[in-house]
Amino acid sequence: MKWSKMLIPTVKEVPADAEVPSHQLMIRGGFIRKLASGTYSYLPLGWRTLNKIMGIVRAEMDAAGAQEMLLPAVQPIDLWQRTGRDVDYGETMCRFTDRHGRENVLAPTAEEVITYVAGCEINSYKQLPLNLYQMSFKFRDEFRPRFGVLRSREFIMKDSYSFHASPESLEETYRIMYDTYKRIFERCGVEYVIVEAETGEMGGSGSHQFTVPCETGEDVIVYTADGSYAANIEKADVDGPKDSGGQSAAGAMAEVHTPQVGSIEAVCGFLKTKPEEMIKTLIYRTSAENAAKQVSQEKAKHDGRLVITSNAYVENYYIALVRGDHDVNEEKLRIATGESVCLADEKDIIELTGAAVGFAGPMQMTDHPYVVKLIVDPWVAALPVGVTGANKTDYHVKNVVPGRDFALEGEKVIIRDIRNAVEGDTYKGQPLLFRRGIEVGQVFKLGTKYSAKLEATYLDENGKSQPCIMGCYGIGINRIMASAIEVGNDENGVIWPISIAPYEVLITVANANDDEVTSAAEKIYQQLLDDDIDVLLDDRSIRGGVKFKDADLVGIPVRITVGSRGVAEGQVEIKLRREAEKELVAIDEAAGRAERIVAELYAELEK
Amino acid sequence: MKWSKMLIPTVKEVPADAEVPSHQLMIRGGFIRKLASGTYSYLPLGWRTLNKIMGIVRAEMDAAGAQEMLLPAVQPIDLWQRTGRDVDYGETMCRFTDRHGRENVLAPTAEEVITYVAGCEINSYKQLPLNLYQMSFKFRDEFRPRFGVLRSREFIMKDSYSFHASPESLEETYRIMYDTYKRIFERCGVEYVIVEAETGEMGGSGSHQFTVPCETGEDVIVYTADGSYAANIEKADVDGPKDSGGQSAAGAMAEVHTPQVGSIEAVCGFLKTKPEEMIKTLIYRTSAENAAKQVSQEKAKHDGRLVITSNAYVENYYIALVRGDHDVNEEKLRIATGESVCLADEKDIIELTGAAVGFAGPMQMTDHPYVVKLIVDPWVAALPVGVTGANKTDYHVKNVVPGRDFALEGEKVIIRDIRNAVEGDTYKGQPLLFRRGIEVGQVFKLGTKYSAKLEATYLDENGKSQPCIMGCYGIGINRIMASAIEVGNDENGVIWPISIAPYEVLITVANANDDEVTSAAEKIYQQLLDDDIDVLLDDRSIRGGVKFKDADLVGIPVRITVGSRGVAEGQVEIKLRREAEKELVAIDEAAGRAERIVAELYAELEK
Repeated sequence: MKWSKMLIPTVKEVPADAEVPSHQLMIRGGFIRKLASGTYSYLPLGWRTLNKIMGIVRAEMDAAGAQEMLLPAVQPIDLWQRTGRDVDYGETMCRFTDRHGRENVLAPTAEEVITYVAGCEINSYKQLPLNLYQMSFKFRDEFRPRFGVLRSREFIMKDSYSFHASPESLEETYRIMYDTYKRIFERCGVEYVIVEAETGEMGGSGSHQFTVPCETGEDVIVYTADGSYAANIEKADVDGPKDSGGQSAAGAMAEVHTPQVGSIEAVCGFLKTKPEEMIKTLIYRTSAENAAKQVSQEKAKHDGRLVITSNAYVENYYIALVRGDHDVNEEKLRIATGESVCLADEKDIIELTGAAVGFAGPMQMTDHPYVVKLIVDPWVAALPVGVTGANKTDYHVKNVVPGRDFALEGEKVIIRDIRNAVEGDTYKGQPLLFRRGIEVGQVFKLGTKYSAKLEATYLDENGKSQPCIMGCYGIGINRIMASAIEVGNDENGVIWPISIAPYEVLITVANANDDEVTSAAEKIYQQLLDDDIDVLLDDRSIRGGVKFKDADLVGIPVRITVGSRGVAEGQVEIKLRREAEKELVAIDEAAGRAERIVAELYAELEK
Repeated sequence: MKWSKMLIPTVKEVPADAEVPSHQLMIRGGFIRKLASGTYSYLPLGWRTLNKIMGIVRAEMDAAGAQEMLLPAVQPIDLWQRTGRDVDYGETMCRFTDRHGRENVLAPTAEEVITYVAGCEINSYKQLPLNLYQMSFKFRDEFRPRFGVLRSREFIMKDSYSFHASPESLEETYRIMYDTYKRIFERCGVEYVIVEAETGEMGGSGSHQFTVPCETGEDVIVYTADGSYAANIEKADVDGPKDSGGQSAAGAMAEVHTPQVGSIEAVCGFLKTKPEEMIKTLIYRTSAENAAKQVSQEKAKHDGRLVITSNAYVENYYIALVRGDHDVNEEKLRIATGESVCLADEKDIIELTGAAVGFAGPMQMTDHPYVVKLIVDPWVAALPVGVTGANKTDYHVKNVVPGRDFALEGEKVIIRDIRNAVEGDTYKGQPLLFRRGIEVGQVFKLGTKYSAKLEATYLDENGKSQPCIMGCYGIGINRIMASAIEVGNDENGVIWPISIAPYEVLITVANANDDEVTSAAEKIYQQLLDDDIDVLLDDRSIRGGVKFKDADLVGIPVRITVGSRGVAEGQVEIKLRREAEKELVAIDEAAGRAERIVAELYAELEK
């Protein structure tokens, strides 16, 4: 293709709303344009990269025995009501009523639909395992779309779903997908780490996340230096404290007047204590969404006809205690409580504690009829003595001894890791390290969560009906593109891996008004085209300097520069975008040399 | 791929709601499954065909110099308000409000968005022409989805848009697209005709429609036997009457009592007259949508802030007269009146005519202040005498002489072809023939309709700002698939063209429990795979008879059957799906022979 015929609108200015390199460079290089908050048009160069990524994903998925298909993006809401995920997704999932009054959603993902569709066709264990995938439009109405296509509302997801008659079969396909994902990211030329992950609202029994480490990533991964452990922050385990509390010589609890001093920092400043001596008391409740979900599931059971006996739900509270220097990990809390919880609002807190927000403490809490559980982090349980809220506005209490002043035993008490890992933590004795990254893929063992609710069953060898055991496997196509830029750029622009670059080779005509130069460049261009190299010829009638800047910006990996001086001597320059050195090559040999370099760059990715 | 590993859920029963062969066979062959009214999942076989069609479209579009890109499917409604097409599309276009209260639409097409996106990047005539395309998810909430994927709500459209600095440049690209479309449909193996078409709501100055002729098609094409003229029914011109009315010897008009006899047939039966002697009087009005559009455009002009001075709109009526044996062509009427019109409702008709529906006549109509125009078809104007409604409930009038009893002249009268062509009509003296078909593609010269409203301008050679001249070009990917089946099937199933068949070759293992047979089949399978043939091996452990039925049903063009008797003699059978004869070939030569046949089938499409 010739640059003069293409729409490649490069721009010099860094767009004001673009915070991360990939966003800035995708705009500046003419790869994308914003249409509305979180939605982007992929211009020709950007689309070429997306399409190359999809080509790699397709080839590897097919090689792994998965079958491509296409599910509707507009889906009836009743399938979502049957799993209750219409509620889990909340406002992130867009809904609309069609002209015949039916409620639809715009697919944020497709577990429900594939389970329904495959469930209709699967009858016997003989048809299993099956691994089905699609690469298609997805929409999530993110509250705050940001970082360009890293967190956009509309995107292309490769989502696959496997169906099995035994856990062993799931394990086998899960392992195949795990290995396939490794090959996909390797072939795409993005360095990645694999970490254990929580399954979250997806449900299921195990998950791994594929993450591209980079400073600008929204995800935090936690790992040990020896590589024996890696997990994302939602999942990462930490060792418990070495000292397990024991007897305390502290005196009786004492109230202290702390007027309008509610936050941990403020209390520490006021009382001259340290955050690690504070007991942070957080009040959670059964989420309203969860209550609504029960209603919704009830509704779905009755074929969508509304059968609600009462709108009221019981107010269940959970009290979580972590040290002042720690943060509650809501995924861990969800697992500890066994249900979705959310922070109680101000009104609830005042009602429960009798005090304004900021002054809650654990004393007597287990006696309260609406408190279901007190969940104590082991690092709180191990405190010999601490400071916490007095359940009285403007008051804290000192000399609080866990086990003496609030219960560490009993049926309402759970002692369990419910906090995020922090610097200084260890796992199995090894220090934990932290790194930011971009999640580009995740694999899940789903089990029967979806198949049971959507009745995707098969007859086993004994003729007995069983719900299919499922796995699911996602890749963010657009995120691969963005993360390749996040890790592949310099101050001048993008540095693409060869496999997903919009073109493999760029020929820059440095002096477009020199016929010798133009014809030498055309000759090399033709030869590369004949040899099936993806080549772009910058034939624009503009200054060479502008072209070189654009070349750096769009980041084609192999570059041939054809200029007057070189051509007079029968030579052209070849250089890699990622390297500074140039190589002088005879005009006749340029195409051949470029092709060998392209082959070498691909070979690097295969290593 | 091996059949035993694939999801190909063939079914014997013809689905109750499937009226046309493509719908029936796509369900029966396991190509698609319905998820909801008008939305379908494409199962692996169906997806393979779609993907092959997209591959052909992409190759030809790229070869024509068009550039692929991807536009958002969720689009801000304000772009649609600026062209007024939010109103034109009405309920067919789905809308939803996002979590931040912004109104969005699900793309039914993308003229507005591409014009906006390209308009932002186009500055100079030097950047033109540009031809941009995408193949992507579209959604139209059809009132009555039907015929499977022929009229589905969700589908994949290839839509391209070209931008030009001169009509000549548009003409050139239009011609290139026209030729590209011919190659695309030829390579897809579907026979097509090209007819002149109306531009309808798209606007613009010229259009051609690519139609696959078949009995089940929803479109009607009209053509002359010598091939000199072809158009779709919305567009087709007809010759006027030879006799142009002239003096009539009829007596004065006379009222006849026709109690509860309103329809043409009923009146003819009652009065013993013929439909061609009747004058059908139809009352149209400025559509409410049109009025709403004016409001909407007004709104858009003021940046979306609502500035409406009055909700009322003037009731403008148009009276259309056609002969009793003719039907009004609303496209022609739209052109004659210069605006979108719709049939008036009962209340309006009673108010205007003073009579119940079924008794309207043209007498005195031009005197009515709300009647803007009386549009008389030439075949009515040429009637020496006719029968029409009396504008009085339960009465008609006889001896109505056009020009005497109602005006054929004056500023309110238009005499113009406003009817559909019918059997017996001629065009330039040649008899018109009729044929049904499926529209698979359409090309439009749009002109500046969109660029003017969305300010997509360029600076011309004199530095003057001009709106881009545009063309647009659409292909229904799913419709190519369906129409290939409509014209390629027999009582046993589908007969695919080689280029878009899910697989090129099917190897059927007739006796799956015979190891010799299995190993001979595997050997041929491997050789075909090695030679890059798309081959499916039916290795299922079921009776050969069931496999043969399935083979016919899914319609893979080249079939190799490996059975015990043949293998004992060192032979296998090769046959084409479309032919009855079988050929016996030595096992070792089978793959080679099949490859030659595949090559021949492709060569047929290139001819």
